[in-house]
Amino acid sequence: MDLKLQSQEALAAMLKETRAAYEALQDKKLQLNMARGNPSPEQLALTMPMMNTLTADDSLITEANEDCRNYGVLGGIPEARKLFAELLSVPADEVFVAGNSSLQLMFNCIQIAFTHGIAGCEPWHKQENLKFLCPVPGYDRHFAVADYFGLQLIPVPMKPDGPDMDIVAEYVEKDASVKGIWCVPVYSNPTGVTYSDEVVRRFASLKPAAKDFRIFWDNAYCIHHIVENPVQPLRITDACKEFDSEDMIYQFVSTSKVTFAGAGVAAVNMSKANLAQFTKEMGIQTIGFDKINQMRHVRFFGDAAGVLTHMKKHAAVLKPKFDVVISMLETELAPLGLGSWTVPQGGYFISYQAPKGCAKRIVQLCKDAGVTLTPAGATYPYGNDPDDSNIRIAPTYPSVEALHQTMELFCLCVKLAAIEQLVHE
Amino acid sequence: MDLKLQSQEALAAMLKETRAAYEALQDKKLQLNMARGNPSPEQLALTMPMMNTLTADDSLITEANEDCRNYGVLGGIPEARKLFAELLSVPADEVFVAGNSSLQLMFNCIQIAFTHGIAGCEPWHKQENLKFLCPVPGYDRHFAVADYFGLQLIPVPMKPDGPDMDIVAEYVEKDASVKGIWCVPVYSNPTGVTYSDEVVRRFASLKPAAKDFRIFWDNAYCIHHIVENPVQPLRITDACKEFDSEDMIYQFVSTSKVTFAGAGVAAVNMSKANLAQFTKEMGIQTIGFDKINQMRHVRFFGDAAGVLTHMKKHAAVLKPKFDVVISMLETELAPLGLGSWTVPQGGYFISYQAPKGCAKRIVQLCKDAGVTLTPAGATYPYGNDPDDSNIRIAPTYPSVEALHQTMELFCLCVKLAAIEQLVHE
Repeated sequence: MDLKLQSQEALAAMLKETRAAYEALQDKKLQLNMARGNPSPEQLALTMPMMNTLTADDSLITEANEDCRNYGVLGGIPEARKLFAELLSVPADEVFVAGNSSLQLMFNCIQIAFTHGIAGCEPWHKQENLKFLCPVPGYDRHFAVADYFGLQLIPVPMKPDGPDMDIVAEYVEKDASVKGIWCVPVYSNPTGVTYSDEVVRRFASLKPAAKDFRIFWDNAYCIHHIVENPVQPLRITDACKEFDSEDMIYQFVSTSKVTFAGAGVAAVNMSKANLAQFTKEMGIQTIGFDKINQMRHVRFFGDAAGVLTHMKKHAAVLKPKFDVVISMLETELAPLGLGSWTVPQGGYFISYQAPKGCAKRIVQLCKDAGVTLTPAGATYPYGNDPDDSNIRIAPTYPSVEALHQTMELFCLCVKLAAIEQLVHE
Repeated sequence: MDLKLQSQEALAAMLKETRAAYEALQDKKLQLNMARGNPSPEQLALTMPMMNTLTADDSLITEANEDCRNYGVLGGIPEARKLFAELLSVPADEVFVAGNSSLQLMFNCIQIAFTHGIAGCEPWHKQENLKFLCPVPGYDRHFAVADYFGLQLIPVPMKPDGPDMDIVAEYVEKDASVKGIWCVPVYSNPTGVTYSDEVVRRFASLKPAAKDFRIFWDNAYCIHHIVENPVQPLRITDACKEFDSEDMIYQFVSTSKVTFAGAGVAAVNMSKANLAQFTKEMGIQTIGFDKINQMRHVRFFGDAAGVLTHMKKHAAVLKPKFDVVISMLETELAPLGLGSWTVPQGGYFISYQAPKGCAKRIVQLCKDAGVTLTPAGATYPYGNDPDDSNIRIAPTYPSVEALHQTMELFCLCVKLAAIEQLVHE
């Protein structure tokens, strides 16, 4: 039954009925927040054994005989560098292990380019009208960092296998004012898309007009699968070897969604040339990051295999939640032809494309009934979704039961907004 | 016996004798590093019980019902803000608790002023020929941060009760290009001086020419006493109330030298107006700092009194080390009139003023015999000590026995350098 084919009379009846159902849900006085991709208490509990990993009786001396308790070891303890290196299949001496926030590492990279310049180029604050490419829909905190430093955010459409690489190449290879691009190559935020090998290879083969152009490869979800036998995408570092373009990539990871969102360990992988400058610059702002927490993670996991085993426990918690969202969308909205959505094999989000012009109204209706979603438009630079269509659904935090209620409300709000748009009241 | 009054013959004999003694010490092949103010393993052991403070059975929920394990709570958990507030006698809502590095917080403050501007002023990168005042001798990492952002470092002499405030006032009140000053008000690095109430009051009463001038009040050693009944200096925050100048101060503290140098908790105290901007800007680079480590500290100490009790244990370890240094200087160098030094009541350093023109030579001689000191000149902007005289002695890391050996060597190197300077070979 396509709504658009209904008579005004039928639509008016549906509107009345849907409004009544919405008001009934309002009366339930839900109080739920799905605005951010937060792990649930159930997921956090998976890591509680890590709290017992290091005790007063344990040695806190690294394999290089450095004391985790004291100052120094700026780039991270050798054990932690090896662990991240193993997870990313890169050399340990191309990994810098830091504090609890990969966002902060991204910020650091941009700050260094802005205040001091990279690759021997002028600092960005002395160059004019700079641009940063933003595949859309994308991650609002990424956009905010580039915007903070005055870079113009240029939206680039996402396709089913990654950003539109013709557009990316056109910008990057012809315009020296284009300095970077945000990428979430695996289970992209929010679309859930994993970049195809072809897209990864095209990134690696870019010949930027600007020597200080960098790809910000935020591999936040590289091990966050919810299916068995997930796609194993081409590694950007391997692709770059082929094109001798290693200096173009900053690859970020963290355990924020592996151990604790607030108390994990973040790392950045970059070429030796990039890392030499990055380390020198970071040495101005700190003597070193929390090495005890690095050691705690290393001892808890043992090795990369230990991390992957742990991720299976997350998958067991998350899969049913993704299933609820998808099945509710299938049941409630598919028959009415209302919008489209992704069915990700991992990550933290489901991306819903509402009928054009409905996203803001849907988010507002949800909010008025007690459910906070990511603001409509947040997945676009400057909060501007030209179609007012994309809504990021973050299913990880609520319980399965709460998610049922939320999705019932969500689907109802979609219907209501769509009918409102069609009916001539 | 003043060396300068000796005959050349006597000096030549002394030189021969001292060289022989030096060579004998070289043969001992010492391997010691006193370059940095690192806590000793014995001090770090004092905090090992903290490793058992939080276990898998403990609640990690704050008093405001926030989960330490999840994202958010950018300014720190309420419990930690209260603990630092109590230690500094300031309101908890004027405290921002962050990660493990107060240096990084200082860097953040300067970065924000540089890239975005503070107090409604132009960003520093758009203003020209800016200056930062540096009381000397001072802390090289402070100087490095201001230098990193291109600020010209202006040395200001330290007096026995703090920086020369006539010079400070002259610069700050007449020159709008002066944007900040580094201060270590208690047990100053490296002089050990605690600012007098008069100096603190003069700081608070400054009427800066630049609206975006800030005093970087690094209170790193505010509770690091090694004597009973230490001087209780006037608090800058109390003095500022008198002059309505609260917005002029950023006050930094950390537990780096209370718990673990590499895994402590840092905080900054600032006026509500300053904190509002600081929090907004920090929210671009991170979702929040490690709240579990904040909670670990809070539970370990309980309250400010618990922190002060813990500091007495540090004092018991440190006092004998400071005593060794002072008594060796008194015994070996005072009779010869060789240099002068401070006798601090706390902190991490003893400042030794060598005979003019001898500091570099002394540090080199020590190095050639296996003992690394802070480089001569490091306590001055651009490494330039015009008298080549100041040497920072960091007695905290070596054992008392190793310190004996080191100071024996140090005193011998001072004698050797002084005689070399006087004798006409």
